[in-house]
Amino acid sequence: MADAITPRNQDYSQWYVDVVRAAGLAEYSPVRGSMIIPPNGYALWENMQRALDGMFKATGHRNAYFPLFIPQSFLAREAEHVEGFAKECAVVTHYRLKTEDGELIVDPDAKLEEPLIVRPTSETIIWDAYSRWIQSWRDLPILINQWANVVRWEMRTRLFLRTSEFLWQEGHTAHATEQEAIEEARRMLDVYTTFAEEWMAMPVTRGPKTASERFPGAVDTFTIEAMMQDGKALQAGTSHFLGQNFAKAFDCTFTNQNNEQEHVWATSWGVTTRLVGALVMTHGDDQGLILPPRLAPMQAVVVPIYRANKPDDKAAVLDTVATIRRELEVAGVRVHVDAREEQRPGWKFNEYEVQGVPLRLAVGPRDVQNGTVELARRDRDGKESVPLDTLADTVTSLLDEIQRGLFQQARDRRDSRTTKVDSYDAFKEAVEDGFVLAHWDGTPETEARIKEETKATIRCIPFDRDDEQGEDMLTGQPSEGRVLFARAY
Amino acid sequence: MADAITPRNQDYSQWYVDVVRAAGLAEYSPVRGSMIIPPNGYALWENMQRALDGMFKATGHRNAYFPLFIPQSFLAREAEHVEGFAKECAVVTHYRLKTEDGELIVDPDAKLEEPLIVRPTSETIIWDAYSRWIQSWRDLPILINQWANVVRWEMRTRLFLRTSEFLWQEGHTAHATEQEAIEEARRMLDVYTTFAEEWMAMPVTRGPKTASERFPGAVDTFTIEAMMQDGKALQAGTSHFLGQNFAKAFDCTFTNQNNEQEHVWATSWGVTTRLVGALVMTHGDDQGLILPPRLAPMQAVVVPIYRANKPDDKAAVLDTVATIRRELEVAGVRVHVDAREEQRPGWKFNEYEVQGVPLRLAVGPRDVQNGTVELARRDRDGKESVPLDTLADTVTSLLDEIQRGLFQQARDRRDSRTTKVDSYDAFKEAVEDGFVLAHWDGTPETEARIKEETKATIRCIPFDRDDEQGEDMLTGQPSEGRVLFARAY
Repeated sequence: MADAITPRNQDYSQWYVDVVRAAGLAEYSPVRGSMIIPPNGYALWENMQRALDGMFKATGHRNAYFPLFIPQSFLAREAEHVEGFAKECAVVTHYRLKTEDGELIVDPDAKLEEPLIVRPTSETIIWDAYSRWIQSWRDLPILINQWANVVRWEMRTRLFLRTSEFLWQEGHTAHATEQEAIEEARRMLDVYTTFAEEWMAMPVTRGPKTASERFPGAVDTFTIEAMMQDGKALQAGTSHFLGQNFAKAFDCTFTNQNNEQEHVWATSWGVTTRLVGALVMTHGDDQGLILPPRLAPMQAVVVPIYRANKPDDKAAVLDTVATIRRELEVAGVRVHVDAREEQRPGWKFNEYEVQGVPLRLAVGPRDVQNGTVELARRDRDGKESVPLDTLADTVTSLLDEIQRGLFQQARDRRDSRTTKVDSYDAFKEAVEDGFVLAHWDGTPETEARIKEETKATIRCIPFDRDDEQGEDMLTGQPSEGRVLFARAY
Repeated sequence: MADAITPRNQDYSQWYVDVVRAAGLAEYSPVRGSMIIPPNGYALWENMQRALDGMFKATGHRNAYFPLFIPQSFLAREAEHVEGFAKECAVVTHYRLKTEDGELIVDPDAKLEEPLIVRPTSETIIWDAYSRWIQSWRDLPILINQWANVVRWEMRTRLFLRTSEFLWQEGHTAHATEQEAIEEARRMLDVYTTFAEEWMAMPVTRGPKTASERFPGAVDTFTIEAMMQDGKALQAGTSHFLGQNFAKAFDCTFTNQNNEQEHVWATSWGVTTRLVGALVMTHGDDQGLILPPRLAPMQAVVVPIYRANKPDDKAAVLDTVATIRRELEVAGVRVHVDAREEQRPGWKFNEYEVQGVPLRLAVGPRDVQNGTVELARRDRDGKESVPLDTLADTVTSLLDEIQRGLFQQARDRRDSRTTKVDSYDAFKEAVEDGFVLAHWDGTPETEARIKEETKATIRCIPFDRDDEQGEDMLTGQPSEGRVLFARAY
């Protein structure tokens, strides 16, 4: 506990790792590329799940579960899909171990006829099922989501942002018309936007990906892109219009209302545990994590303060603390009382600061006498004494204020570090610091060259970009409008 | 839809499969031994999760997540554990596919140095982490639960009851003393009992397993055993006191309050998606599923009835239905209105009957005139007309009554089919029909012989058995009390 956190301006990457570890969000496991998510990190993910799951259900989706293992032949059915995932598949080839000469080995007699792939994503196994489930237009739409673990073998990993196994949700929907599927893909991008901005307090830029950045097998990929404190972009969620690609690969047709056979239209969409990393890198500071109140597992922590040799003080303080807890709970605040005697208040203050708890309340004998509470906000320095009798109101309005303030701060940062440039030299300089809006000629060749030379990629073609003709900064070819470039996680 | 359900007395196994399929709870996937859980089945599992998760948190546990993959060498550390699981492991040996001569193959150059096992259970990977997390008595207890998928390769599968991949929760706790760990294991068995009896309306018999039926690596395994309608037992949840076995295997020690080094004491406990199967086989009938109201995703369904050519009737009926929905929702009832016009009321009645919805309400023009609603209970035949103005009270009290009635019925069945016997001949006869309480000499040899000859196993040594000395029915050796025998799923 209380290991030093490297300052951000010294080494941003190390700062990130330090905060994730010190706040108990995640740690590496002995399994290469896989992480452990301890209770603090998982509680945050649970809150994210609850909020998202509610929004998915409110838009008509139901949860289901499909197998972890995908037959190798299924992957091969959609050409771009297999191309995209074959190089990072964990492959199950045997179903038994045995002991030989006192050593545990893979039993060579238990080799599978067909290897099984640990799902990197579930389009194939799900569209195989949909091809059995769907016969008529009456069976459509199918609006299903799955909360699951997936595996994409990674050589270079980073906690939450890039791990071989990660947790996510994947929505998979089936529709009778192209229009309806596109609307669904856009609707879910809206859901992700609402979640990112209103829950995570993380502003995002929305739009389609370029062809080279699309999900393997998609006709169109829509993304939300957030800016981290180091100016890099983080893809925070994607929603794909899959056209009829998977329906064709799995022969999934339906009888439409004119009694004709058609292939079904599809979408898929997902967000992952990398959102936890995004949260850290959007709001954290050199003292540790800062959590937006709507997602914080603990919104307020109360620390009673008294001397062990003053039993009357202790009784009075604990009594007041119990009242505070009750009143905050009634007001709907997720409050935690830390009355452990084996740890000192200063140690506790530090712990909850590192963990990013939005509000810290301390109550000592003098507070009890004065009818006050000492209150400290995690999002700014200092502390103040506030009246006990209006505490619940104070706390709930401060939590709202902090939530709004964090979003505002993140949006101001993003806006101030987003630059419009018209020359490649200016581009190279600006991309060191943040997002860049520049004209692009629409070709994958130019895109690839810029990536090669600057490590910057086109994050998206913003929906809300200005209607502005221009010229590609490199080739001088005509451009329909600016696209968003950045280096990315 | 509406495929015929085989009557129970004709073929109980087929009846089970028919109900599971017709109610949309699960289906086999193309991956051998793995199942798909469609929305109806998953909604039931979500309700089970929510109830259990609340009870886990109320007893001080927090959720976390540990890796899916376990290094092969970890499994080997605890001798009994590897012995118990080696024969049913899915083994990941490669991390890449490639295309060769136009065919997708496992890339032989991407072989892992050490094979990875898809977790059959997580004691090893978790105790490896605990050995890093625990130094002092101050770090104890650790009370962690994980919701996850696990894989145990099965040659003979049955939906929910025995599948290669299944969903479950696994609690893993670490304690400073033996006493505290035993209390934890017992406490979680109590939680499972409460869940089985008060939520699933499924009575259970509790007690330790015999040595031969223990979890591999446990010092003691406690179980809850339920009787299915065919008289067979189903192990519905287990809680293990693991002693210091895993702490020793993973060198997990702590400094106690006397500044001495000790190995940590452990428990683990779990329930799985097989509980969905248990629910089907406890309450279902020849018409389909019957759901206990506390777990039913839909507690009441409302079907409006009118003729398409009578718009006034339609308006009046839909208006009344909207009022009913509102009032039931306010009363906390999970209500669903099925106003689809493309399906006829009779078809809907059948669908919700198969799905086991506890209450069905139908509203037609005459009901609107009379201020009544037609109400049918899933747990008994017939229907009645009830007043609209007290409907919410009627519904909530009926839901309670159904919940209690299902439990009572299941308990009566179990009690009437539990027999005390004192001779092996009587045992052989009685075990055809249900549970048998008989004396046993305590040896694994006698236990094995009975299993071999009758397919009956000792389900548990009931906590609440009578204090009664006796003689083993086979060997005549002294017995400390009766144990519970049954054939089991």
